[in-house]
Amino acid sequence: MNVSARNAFKGQISALVDGAVNAEVELSLAGGDKIVAIVTEGSVKSLGLEVGKEAVAYVKAPWVMLLAGPQEAKFSARNQLSGKVSVLIKGGVNTEVGVTLAGGTIVYSVVTNEAVMELGLKEGSEATALIKASHVILGVPA
Amino acid sequence: MNVSARNAFKGQISALVDGAVNAEVELSLAGGDKIVAIVTEGSVKSLGLEVGKEAVAYVKAPWVMLLAGPQEAKFSARNQLSGKVSVLIKGGVNTEVGVTLAGGTIVYSVVTNEAVMELGLKEGSEATALIKASHVILGVPA
Amino acid sequence: MNVSARNAFKGQISALVDGAVNAEVELSLAGGDKIVAIVTEGSVKSLGLEVGKEAVAYVKAPWVMLLAGPQEAKFSARNQLSGKVSVLIKGGVNTEVGVTLAGGTIVYSVVTNEAVMELGLKEGSEATALIKASHVILGVPA
Repeated sequence: MNVSARNAFKGQISALVDGAVNAEVELSLAGGDKIVAIVTEGSVKSLGLEVGKEAVAYVKAPWVMLLAGPQEAKFSARNQLSGKVSVLIKGGVNTEVGVTLAGGTIVYSVVTNEAVMELGLKEGSEATALIKASHVILGVPA
Repeated sequence: MNVSARNAFKGQISALVDGAVNAEVELSLAGGDKIVAIVTEGSVKSLGLEVGKEAVAYVKAPWVMLLAGPQEAKFSARNQLSGKVSVLIKGGVNTEVGVTLAGGTIVYSVVTNEAVMELGLKEGSEATALIKASHVILGVPA
Repeated sequence: MNVSARNAFKGQISALVDGAVNAEVELSLAGGDKIVAIVTEGSVKSLGLEVGKEAVAYVKAPWVMLLAGPQEAKFSARNQLSGKVSVLIKGGVNTEVGVTLAGGTIVYSVVTNEAVMELGLKEGSEATALIKASHVILGVPA
């Protein structure tokens, strides 16, 4: 199956915290990076999510916010993934930016062209990708 | 009133499950398709949401993820809407893709041009639109 | 630190309602406008969020839905910010639209070109920006 999300992070569930309605699921990726997703308890049951199970975290590129420059602020987003800019594809309004993490995973973001200029993003720049846990969709083999 | 969301699904509330903070609202569309939204209990009260009431589910196109090809995975997204690709409008970075469901509703998604190629999307292709319930905004006549 | 989100609303926390898992945080901006964010209680602690503290609400432009024309409907989105269109930058598929609020804050949205036509948006048009509280990312000085 093919999925339109630019980001498909394959990993193994390394933690699962149940709540009344939602569960927080942590996925450990091959390179050592981690992604946290919030899904409903209904999905935990229907997908059979449990620690040790393989899963894929899908995140569309427009859902990813980028940070660059000196770290002068703290953010509420659960996923904060730092790396180096490795891809820059410019369109009329937006640019697709790829950030390669320490473990080799590439996180893709679509940001406005103004943002690329204001952040001074170019190949090799350090950048951090922020992803809200509630924006992540989980998939498991059927 | 006009709304910028490419997707405005008109229907009737067919189920409403209350929670402590959020409620899950199911909308049945004219063609038989269903959309589930998660909204706060505050909105349930202020909009007077209840079973039988007419409402509109708004979803911006970038929130819609597309699947194509053999179904080899299960996903956590609450809304999984299958149909055939009927619209493809290509831009510099993104393409707008319309998927017509069995009931006639068209679901619009904006995905990257790479995704269109990787999924092999063309007019008539089968595709499934995934939408997280928490990404849906509900509207009711004022 | 620079952030790719087109919208960075600087303000002071004017209300904070704790829940079991999530907290609702209201930010009052300099011009008098307010933004409500829903973040986890974990973030409330790690960021030290409390009434009176300065914070920044980040919202990516594609997450903002626009309304125009006579107000014939009510919506579930927690943030409904009215103003006048002051920026229109057209791309191949999408247009970036800036709406200046009464207090002077500009809210940026990325919508499809069709939406701009259907809403009849031009400089000076009245428009309302809808933002779900769960889509807002909060930041505080580190």
